[in-house]
Amino acid sequence: MDKLYIVKIGGNIIDDEARLKRFLEDYSNIPEKKILVHGGGKLATRMAEGLGIEQQLVDGRRITDAETLRIVTMVYAGYINKNIVARLQANHCNAMGLCGADGDAILAHKRRHPVMDYGFVGDVDAINTHLIKTLLESNIAPVFAPITHDQQGQLLNTNADTIAQELAKAMSQDYNVSLIYSFEKSGVLLDANDDNTVIPVLKPSYYQELKTKEVIFAGMIPKLDNAFNALRSGVGNIIIGRAEELPRLLSGESGTRIEHE
Amino acid sequence: MDKLYIVKIGGNIIDDEARLKRFLEDYSNIPEKKILVHGGGKLATRMAEGLGIEQQLVDGRRITDAETLRIVTMVYAGYINKNIVARLQANHCNAMGLCGADGDAILAHKRRHPVMDYGFVGDVDAINTHLIKTLLESNIAPVFAPITHDQQGQLLNTNADTIAQELAKAMSQDYNVSLIYSFEKSGVLLDANDDNTVIPVLKPSYYQELKTKEVIFAGMIPKLDNAFNALRSGVGNIIIGRAEELPRLLSGESGTRIEHE
Repeated sequence: MDKLYIVKIGGNIIDDEARLKRFLEDYSNIPEKKILVHGGGKLATRMAEGLGIEQQLVDGRRITDAETLRIVTMVYAGYINKNIVARLQANHCNAMGLCGADGDAILAHKRRHPVMDYGFVGDVDAINTHLIKTLLESNIAPVFAPITHDQQGQLLNTNADTIAQELAKAMSQDYNVSLIYSFEKSGVLLDANDDNTVIPVLKPSYYQELKTKEVIFAGMIPKLDNAFNALRSGVGNIIIGRAEELPRLLSGESGTRIEHE
Repeated sequence: MDKLYIVKIGGNIIDDEARLKRFLEDYSNIPEKKILVHGGGKLATRMAEGLGIEQQLVDGRRITDAETLRIVTMVYAGYINKNIVARLQANHCNAMGLCGADGDAILAHKRRHPVMDYGFVGDVDAINTHLIKTLLESNIAPVFAPITHDQQGQLLNTNADTIAQELAKAMSQDYNVSLIYSFEKSGVLLDANDDNTVIPVLKPSYYQELKTKEVIFAGMIPKLDNAFNALRSGVGNIIIGRAEELPRLLSGESGTRIEHE
């Protein structure tokens, strides 16, 4: 099977011009088939503030109301996605920007919850592997914005880590997938404040232990739950690490590798 | 050669929910290969106003400065494009939203002018017919936002009529293309205020005559220049008419047909 890299980048690098430039250069240099998944960044929040749209928070969670959906669609699928694509094209990487509605790439449904209404938030149901394979085999490098659709005409705001994981799971049927979650730290850390404490390999039992001891906490938990979910679903290679170290993440010299017991 | 419909819709229909819905239903019902090109609409202007960004006008022309480019990229390639795609998908039309940077679909350069600086406005250099053919042959219906790129990482605001014309010219090598410019009138009119005065067939000499007599004026001139340019470049069928009458435009029962002498 051909190698396929699926790389997720978060908002912190999108907001940092110098780091984004370097990342996009490193990403463009990957000779194998590849998919980029990007998150948001601060522009959506700044836009909402500029337009006087108040962010709704319920129990500390941001709610995607209709106005917020409009802004994230504009900023994620429009501004961020198209600028990344144009810059990858300048690096001779044949990028194509997509959201989940495009070619019915990612089907989702509006999140159902017994108590909370998250608004226009999508949980992924299906990946159109046929479409993505067609694009990859045409030497296109898809770039996904974290927006999906429900096939009823509704766009949905969807977590970018989850999109990366679902893409990796689905594409593992046809490709030898490496899934790279890049973020602002060098990997999963034993001491969240010390970047020299990267755990090189993380297995399920050790993950449980570190969660129990609260060594791993907060935002790292959904990210790692995503990663272990991908592992259980047959994704061969899963690495978490710093976006600036992309070549070393790919070669296995850096970051945390998520592995079976 | 297979039939290919290239349909351009303008901002006036994008801003009108009921008309847009009907148009998208009619468009979805076209059984042949098809490409949709959309313009802007008032949302970009409203967004700019909301954010306190002043529109720069020079000699009555809107200048695409960096802030305006950011907004049109968000609104055209993000909000409008992805909402149209999601709604076409709901109609079982396998739409895929693209701007010119995606897959290097439309290459342009920043407009050069001896006196005026139009800002980030693109003039089209090349259409990636190989890409578009690959998509069409995969039963994908591309939906183009009027944003292009220069292969140097710069996005460019580009006239949607021109994009439709350039696509039609380029795709005529491989398909029997019908180019439909849809707008708010029933066709090219002898009396701009009377929708019952549609000119059924317009040929170059008659067009010259009507321009000289100022029967055709203002915004119709660049639209018709575009249309005659497409005709000279080998586009087989060119029709101008009302978006709500799409099925009748396609069947030749409505609108103005642009023809050789």
